[in-house]
Amino acid sequence: MQGTTAQPTSPPAAYTPTDRTVPTRSADRASYDKDLVHAILDAAYVCHLGFVRDGAPVVLPTLYGRVGERLYVHGSTGARPLRMTGQADPGLPVCLTVTHVDGLVLARSAFHHSINYRSVVVHGIAHQVTDPEEKRAALDALVDHVVPGRSADSRPANKKELAATMVIRLDLDQVSAKLRTGGANDEPEDLDLPHWAGVVPLRAAYGAPLPNGDLAPGTELPSYLAAL
Amino acid sequence: MQGTTAQPTSPPAAYTPTDRTVPTRSADRASYDKDLVHAILDAAYVCHLGFVRDGAPVVLPTLYGRVGERLYVHGSTGARPLRMTGQADPGLPVCLTVTHVDGLVLARSAFHHSINYRSVVVHGIAHQVTDPEEKRAALDALVDHVVPGRSADSRPANKKELAATMVIRLDLDQVSAKLRTGGANDEPEDLDLPHWAGVVPLRAAYGAPLPNGDLAPGTELPSYLAAL
Repeated sequence: MQGTTAQPTSPPAAYTPTDRTVPTRSADRASYDKDLVHAILDAAYVCHLGFVRDGAPVVLPTLYGRVGERLYVHGSTGARPLRMTGQADPGLPVCLTVTHVDGLVLARSAFHHSINYRSVVVHGIAHQVTDPEEKRAALDALVDHVVPGRSADSRPANKKELAATMVIRLDLDQVSAKLRTGGANDEPEDLDLPHWAGVVPLRAAYGAPLPNGDLAPGTELPSYLAAL
Repeated sequence: MQGTTAQPTSPPAAYTPTDRTVPTRSADRASYDKDLVHAILDAAYVCHLGFVRDGAPVVLPTLYGRVGERLYVHGSTGARPLRMTGQADPGLPVCLTVTHVDGLVLARSAFHHSINYRSVVVHGIAHQVTDPEEKRAALDALVDHVVPGRSADSRPANKKELAATMVIRLDLDQVSAKLRTGGANDEPEDLDLPHWAGVVPLRAAYGAPLPNGDLAPGTELPSYLAAL
């Protein structure tokens, strides 16, 4: 900045790469841009949460929510990964990964077949959320992650439900995104082969909402669902 | 069987549940049916592969292929999880998870919001594939997993490419599927609340194939892609 007066500092626009977040392969596909990371996280429904149990890895799909630079995962107080983040212990090392498959990449050579994708990998220590305000906000974020605005149009959790639900927090700190876009990258000597090459795009498509059979008469489809 | 003569034995139709594969929660949603497990695995494009590095979990998205009761993952010989399954070592403990999101489940209560899904979790020890025949078959399976039949319509890997590619195998042994289907399960006292409840179906949709810009003139779209 060339200005001579102090500027208001905005938060850094990128995560700092670390040994854990710089990939060993295709490092040119990696990004640490916060806006990109947030966009990838917010557009998916399920993450894959990895933790270590008895020395072996476990990877489970689960819902999640984001509030700023914090991710939240919830579950029953009886669920294994949540139990493992006891309030008194130093937290649970986790790896939380979100992936969108955007296209099938068909090359002339078998070797160069690939997938177009956007993924985010978050490393860190998950901690149990004990503050009641933070827990409520996290549960709202989890519901709003399924459909934005939905938490305001549903019955909030009552005392019993709150007690039965454990929420864990993972800070966005050791984070990287990785993307592949574009067509097939064949070897120059393969370009004249007769095999078709290119991309078959893939996206998530919504079907028409299916109302519950026990819906109270006269309950209309909310506009935020009709717009999906 | 009531027959008095010996019947030809067919392979067991289900995996044997183990301590690792019986979930701590919602065990009623778990299945060990082989046909179901195969169908879930074959319908997805990307798995999430978990392993332990320096005591911490790592979860990476990757392509995979299936040949009978074996899963294969491939990558550059420089990729970290593949390097970690050295030929001389006892293999790498992994957890390989595949998840389809089939619908958003909206309940009257925030607590009962959910996702309809089908997932498969495979625990085991990944071993490097060293047999050249098995390696070739695994690479064909990886390409055919992207588009069935595609390996026969592309240039097979040459010596240099084979040498640069490492393939690891994971046997389907400690395996479980888990599913949620159906509508929202609200508490009886919530059924009259004015909030809409039901399911928004989700599915993967293919876009029109995008040919590479450098495609040889006259190369037509193969029928197996036109049919997607």
